[in-house]
Formats: sequence, C-alpha cells, structure tokens
Amino acid sequence: MPAQIPSDSVGLVTPERARFEAPFTVQSGQTLPEFELVYETYGELNAARSNAVLIYHALSGHHHAAGYSTMEDQKPGWWDTCIGPGKPLDTNRFFIVSLNNLGGCHGSTGPRSINPETGRVYGPDFPTITVRDWVRSQKLLMENLNIDRWAAVVGGSLGAMQAMQWAIDYPEQLGHAVLIAGAPKLSAQNIAFNEIARQAITTDPDYHGGRYLEAGSNPVRGLMLARMVGHVTYQSDHSWADKFGREIKSGDIERGQEVEFQVESYLHYQGRSFSQHFDANTYVLMTRALDYFDPAREFGDDLVAALRTTACDFMVTAFSTDWRFSPSRSKEIVDALIHAGKSVVSTVIDTPFGHDAFLLPVERYLDVFSAYMDRVARQEGLNNGR
Amino acid sequence: MPAQIPSDSVGLVTPERARFEAPFTVQSGQTLPEFELVYETYGELNAARSNAVLIYHALSGHHHAAGYSTMEDQKPGWWDTCIGPGKPLDTNRFFIVSLNNLGGCHGSTGPRSINPETGRVYGPDFPTITVRDWVRSQKLLMENLNIDRWAAVVGGSLGAMQAMQWAIDYPEQLGHAVLIAGAPKLSAQNIAFNEIARQAITTDPDYHGGRYLEAGSNPVRGLMLARMVGHVTYQSDHSWADKFGREIKSGDIERGQEVEFQVESYLHYQGRSFSQHFDANTYVLMTRALDYFDPAREFGDDLVAALRTTACDFMVTAFSTDWRFSPSRSKEIVDALIHAGKSVVSTVIDTPFGHDAFLLPVERYLDVFSAYMDRVARQEGLNNGR
Repeated sequence: MPAQIPSDSVGLVTPERARFEAPFTVQSGQTLPEFELVYETYGELNAARSNAVLIYHALSGHHHAAGYSTMEDQKPGWWDTCIGPGKPLDTNRFFIVSLNNLGGCHGSTGPRSINPETGRVYGPDFPTITVRDWVRSQKLLMENLNIDRWAAVVGGSLGAMQAMQWAIDYPEQLGHAVLIAGAPKLSAQNIAFNEIARQAITTDPDYHGGRYLEAGSNPVRGLMLARMVGHVTYQSDHSWADKFGREIKSGDIERGQEVEFQVESYLHYQGRSFSQHFDANTYVLMTRALDYFDPAREFGDDLVAALRTTACDFMVTAFSTDWRFSPSRSKEIVDALIHAGKSVVSTVIDTPFGHDAFLLPVERYLDVFSAYMDRVARQEGLNNGR
Repeated sequence: MPAQIPSDSVGLVTPERARFEAPFTVQSGQTLPEFELVYETYGELNAARSNAVLIYHALSGHHHAAGYSTMEDQKPGWWDTCIGPGKPLDTNRFFIVSLNNLGGCHGSTGPRSINPETGRVYGPDFPTITVRDWVRSQKLLMENLNIDRWAAVVGGSLGAMQAMQWAIDYPEQLGHAVLIAGAPKLSAQNIAFNEIARQAITTDPDYHGGRYLEAGSNPVRGLMLARMVGHVTYQSDHSWADKFGREIKSGDIERGQEVEFQVESYLHYQGRSFSQHFDANTYVLMTRALDYFDPAREFGDDLVAALRTTACDFMVTAFSTDWRFSPSRSKEIVDALIHAGKSVVSTVIDTPFGHDAFLLPVERYLDVFSAYMDRVARQEGLNNGR
C-alpha cells in the first residue's frame, strides 16, 4: 500500500470465498461435484439490498479490482480507476461485487484445483466453461449473498459479454447492463488470434498435454507468446507509436550488433511477468469461452430475438481505436437493442489506446460512465452519496 | 503444369544462377567471402537492353514468381496474376527479372548454405542483412546481366521497401519505381508482430540456437506460429469474415466436445505447410531486415531529404483494408515525394483482402497497375506488344 491511501481509494480489501456443494453441470454436459468462488466487495450493501452492482473481469483478470490487498502493495486492483468514492462505480452509493470466474487461477475453482473425485489436479480435464455457465455460477453467488437483483452488471471486453448474457438469462434480476468494448460474438479474426495464443501454449513441450503441474513444469514460452499476442492486439498502432516509436533499447547494426527496439524489450517483460502468475489451462479455457460466446445462436442467429428477452436498460460504449472489438461491433449490439425496443444509450470514446482503453483513466470515458451510473442510482432510488 | 498452359502464362521456366566471387561486406560490417543468387527471367531482353524490370519478393517469397517450374506443377509462381502476356508486367514488352534475395532459402546463398571459410552451415552466423544490402547485391546481379538501367523496379510489401531503396541508392539506373502496399519504415506495432514471430521460432527447443540443421531438427512449432501470426495480420477482419465467418469444422460444445472453427483448421494447415518448406533462420533474417528499414535515418530522419536524391517516377498503391501497411503509410511516402518535387501517381484500391491484396486478382488494382506500366513502356520507348 502506498505511504498514504488516496482519499478516493476503497483502501485495504480482503477477499471472501463462497462454497457451492451441489453438483454443477455445465453446458458441455460435464459436472463439477462442487466449487468455490473467490470475490471481493467494495462499499456497503444498503438495508433494502438494492444497491448491488456485479462487475466482471476480462480474459486475464481476477477478483481484485480495487484497493489494496496488503500493506505492501504498490499498485491497486485492476479497475481502481473506476471503483471508489466519487468514481463511476461510486462506493458511497453502490455495493460492488467482483469475483474471480469459475475456471480462473486466482482462487476460484479452476484447472489448478484438486478434483475431489480423483484426488488429482483437474488440469486439462477441467470442464469447458461457457459465458452462460459463468453467468449461472454468478447467479448462485448472488443467492449466497442474499441479493435478489443487481442494480447493474458492468463489464469490459469478455466482461461485456457476461453482462449481455446475464441480461438475457436473468432479465428480472437486473436493472441496468453496462457493456464496454464488447461484441455480440467474436469474428473469425478474433478467433484466429485466440487460436494462435492457444497453439503457443499447447505446443510448448513444457505444457505436457496440460499436466504441467504434475510434471513440475510450466509452459513459460507459450504463455509469454500468448500474452505478447494479446498485448499487441489489445492496443492500437497509434498508442504503440506514441509509447515506443522506433526507439532502440540496445545494439547497433553498423557495429554488427542485433538491435533491440524498446517495443521488443517491453513485450518480453510483459510476457515473462504474465507467464509467472497465470495458469496455462485457464488461459486456454477463457479464450475458448470467448470464442464460443454467441447468444444469438439459440435464437435462430437473430440477435434482436435474443435481446428481446431482456428487461433492463443498457449503456454500450466503444473506443475509436479498438480494432479487436471495434465500435462497429458495439453498434451491432446497439442496433439490435433498438430493434428489440429496448432503452439504450451508446457512445464511442475518442482515444488512441485501443481495446485496453476500458482500463485507463480516459477523461471522457469516466465522465460518460459516471453520468450513466448517476442515472442508475436515480432510477434505482439510491440517493445517498454525491 | 496444368493439362493446357493458359495463353497468358509465361509457360515453363528454369531458374538461373549468378555467382559473385568477390567478398561482399554488408552494412553490419560482416563479410560474405562469396555468394550466389538464383533468379528467373520472363520475356526477352530487347536489343537496346532497355526493357528490363526488376521485381522483388516479400517476406516469405522467392524467385519463382510466374509460370511453371516443372511439368507436374499444379500452381504457377506467386505473382502469376501480374506477370505474363497481356498482364500488368507484360512479357510481350518487358524483360522481367525475379530473384531470391540474399539470405533466402530457395537457392540463393543464405543460412542453409555452407560457409566456405568454416565448411559448416552458416545457420545463425549468417550476417544480418539490410534492405540496403539486398539492393547492393541486386546491383551486382544487374551488372552480371549486362543491364545498365531498370525501366522499372516493382514490389509489394517488403518488395516496395527494396524498390524505394533502389530509387535512393541508384537514382541514375532507374526509370520508374512501383511501390505497392509499402511503408517508409515499420511502426512499433509492426515490429511487435515480427518479434512475436521471432520469439516463437527462437524459443522453440528444436531451434537449437539456430543450429537445427546440424542437430537434425526443425523448429516446426515456432515456424507454424510465426506463419499463423503473419497470415492473420496480412488479411483483414472482413476477408476472414467472408471466408470463414464462425463456421464450425468439427465438435459440439453441448456434447462435451471441443469445437474447431474452420478458421482454426485453415490456420493450422497454412502453418504446417509453411513450416515444411521455409527456413527458420531466413525468417528471422527477413523480419529483421523489415524492422531495420528506415531510409530517412541517414538523412536526419527526413524522408523528404532521402527521397530528394531519387530521379525516377513513382507509382504508390495501397489497399483500403490493409492494416499492417495501411494507406496512411503509403500516403507518408506520397507526401514526401510531392515535397521533394518528384513525379508520383498514387491510388488506394478498395478491396476487402487486406495486405495480401497485392498478390490477388483485384480488378481495379490490375487495371491501375497495367495503366502505369503502359506509361512506363511509353516513356521508355518500348512500343512492341499490345
């Protein structure tokens, strides 16, 4: 924790655990005999239990979204920009719930957990998980917390997909859905990038068919490459140009030395660091969940029909330079919502930061997000705070 | 060769070799004691030796650009769309020269060749090669062919970079430069994608520090991944959507099976096939040449100053959906040429095919290319043919 906690921080947070002992059968037909979800909460649940907001993490995220886990932490949670007193997800009026998804590697039951039926680490035998399965597990968490309805569900990227799926699957238990930098389904190019990442991991000899933990190894090279692909594609050409240009870190061709550009050194650093704290099977599982997401499929490939089932209000936001989940993909959602007769506000935020903008302190984005959350508070009758 | 040779094909072609026995010192200061270049020619050199056109290959290309190498070939050379009687590079009036670059793996001296000084395969000890070195080696090939001046130099992608470098380094020995889908230098994002490909190759345990031939191995996994990255990024989101959408090749989530999308299966096929015929060290060398290309650098980072040294006319063409070498990168070249007071015509071709469009039969592109080559023929006084 920094010497002084900023006044707009949620401060020190301790994760909690919820245990679900009933067998949980997922969409693929496989069954988990039991599972746990780890989560954090920020703010206070009001007496009416009406101010709860569920937030979702994206591909490589986890439950620690805001504040500090220990006194030694130098960096706060991954969405601290948006969560805290006076921030868009204002803890003076909302009770925020942030979980690590089922299949994750930060404390929830996942491929690194022991399968109680075999006494062995699940590894590659962990069931295939879909966005729909996640949403169903989140419904159990909601019941566990004695909450009947979310004032809002909020997520960026893969998180936006979960928010959309909740709105479809549990329409009566939701006031608002905030979809940031999302898409109604992945494009072939999106799937291709995910497949490159998976190939990098699963063809690494240290992957051992997914049984690397038992083999005492870790597919570090594969994870590095997977992260590098993600890192390049979640940012824009512009943001990389601004950050690195063609600056040289070391070497000189004319002296017969290999040149290392700054951007290469940065990528290596990011890849190495990721490979030390993320689970390879979880990465494969999460990218598969992204690929399979396609809520219109069960409605005859009609997105309008899928969204007609929803009952909440929507905010849909995209970023101008995001080319993995471009504004045109958000527009598909907005158009379908309009055709389905739903209430939706939408914006495209002008920023050079590509897909990753949803995590960054982009002023206009925070303003729009705050304004919408003000509306959520008003409509849900939450007048405390601000 | 197909049962019947199409009338617009150059027919059966046999590669030739040129041997250079004088030591060749490259930009990095390293010296090749000798080297060979393999090349093909299409059409006839006229009596005045004034109708020669040099074409360049891109990252993973080679000298076999048109016609058929054997009677058994089912597919013609990689640029057969553009080379032949009545095509943009019309063999009724031009004498086309197409070489495999120095450092390549299709017959020219490269990392798979024996270093005569050690008796060992060069492998990773092959000198670092720059675009400038290539152009200098092509000058030697020109002299070997007794040609004083190219009517035109023509290339797409990395080929456009070579054409630009020739125009700067040998201004008096060139009439026209045709730059297709090029850039004045790579962006940080471009370098990042190349670095992912290199990392995939060099971290493959079968790479053996580049000495895989001596180890009796081949970094197949790394080459596959490198090719997959190239393949995805050289096409557009649109072209992939049209080609594959979200079509499923096999599997069914609801039956607990992993789904394989068509796009994944296609990527695997492309990657595998590439890994069987391309040399890993050559791939590393060629991507490095791309990264290092920056002709403005020696002119105080002033592209206008670099291009002021040229004496030819230019055609600069880009493709609307090319995001690796986008139209804005071609525009940088065009703007600099205009500021340098040079003659330039430029177009952006509307096509869904991304960077790879330069290899494809896009009608408008072939029309524009043909029209410009007509002008080359007129200005160079080549009136035979059409």
